[in-house]
Amino acid sequence: MNKNKATNVTWHTHAVKREEREDLLKQKGVVLWFTGLSGSGKSTVANEVAYKLHTMGKMCYILDGDNIRHGLNKDLGFSPEDRTENIRRISEVANLFADAGVITLTAFISPYIKDRNFCRELLGEGRFIEIFTKARLDTCEQRDPKGLYKKAREGVIKEFTGISAPYEEPLNPELVIDTDAESVEESAEIVIEKLKGLGILN
Amino acid sequence: MNKNKATNVTWHTHAVKREEREDLLKQKGVVLWFTGLSGSGKSTVANEVAYKLHTMGKMCYILDGDNIRHGLNKDLGFSPEDRTENIRRISEVANLFADAGVITLTAFISPYIKDRNFCRELLGEGRFIEIFTKARLDTCEQRDPKGLYKKAREGVIKEFTGISAPYEEPLNPELVIDTDAESVEESAEIVIEKLKGLGILN
Repeated sequence: MNKNKATNVTWHTHAVKREEREDLLKQKGVVLWFTGLSGSGKSTVANEVAYKLHTMGKMCYILDGDNIRHGLNKDLGFSPEDRTENIRRISEVANLFADAGVITLTAFISPYIKDRNFCRELLGEGRFIEIFTKARLDTCEQRDPKGLYKKAREGVIKEFTGISAPYEEPLNPELVIDTDAESVEESAEIVIEKLKGLGILN
Repeated sequence: MNKNKATNVTWHTHAVKREEREDLLKQKGVVLWFTGLSGSGKSTVANEVAYKLHTMGKMCYILDGDNIRHGLNKDLGFSPEDRTENIRRISEVANLFADAGVITLTAFISPYIKDRNFCRELLGEGRFIEIFTKARLDTCEQRDPKGLYKKAREGVIKEFTGISAPYEEPLNPELVIDTDAESVEESAEIVIEKLKGLGILN
């Protein structure tokens, strides 16, 4: 205890560690990183997983285009450099949430392997769970929930992943979900079972 | 419920709302924004508040120089423009944490009124609690926990708040703590009582 005599202010304080927050929440702080084409089901599955976890009393939060692109990253576009900066910032924020003890779900196309690996290295062993949300391009284009593929085909949107910009598939993801074959419910259940197996929900 | 017949994927999902996360955590997601000179006790008091809240079973997290300046904002310096961008990003992240239901404590000098007001407006009524950590400049300089005032006086550090860069005191903060007069313990207790009064810990 370091007492500053001149001002009579005690400068010693207690710091709460990540492990203590995890004990309070009865879970591990991790990042579930959903990656895949637009329309492959990232947000949809992430939301269903978050709902299931919430009903189990687990604390989770989703980072996605809705709360990131209009806020923290509204200064960024879709050039390769801006995509990298986009994912860098998201990775840093996800790392903070995981450090807080939160089960953090991210739902971004995140097309580049090197950008996803940046997050993997930031989080460290066992805290980054890459979930490849797999669907055929024609399926995604048919779903086209936001009408983006149509605009990309018309050239209204440039550099659109899968059409006019590349998507690099994960080489070694912790999990692959196939939304051509599985229902949202089934995909979500697969994720939950994976988390149980990894001891994240204890 | 919107069923995509072509792919047999059900696109309806449940979204968890902030209020539901707050119910789970039995608290309100807010930002406690500590502002004041270097050495005024922002981090010290924030840590003590977080410790007390944690022992009460409350979920909180601190954003400070240690976890922001070396991560999310490591590309930023200390020019007026960079300080503004620094606080903008911190505000956006704090807003996400509050949306997650977390009691979020931030400990940054944040010298400009307009930057702090950006966060206030982002969070909205009742969710932004500005805490002015007040101490005389000579007290702060005497404490100088990181040796920064010494370097500022020597001109090694430029644009140092209180010495060679301005600090704009809050005009209408929710709380003022006076670390010239109060112990860390006392200051923390004042903050906790304030939170109880605001109904944030229910």
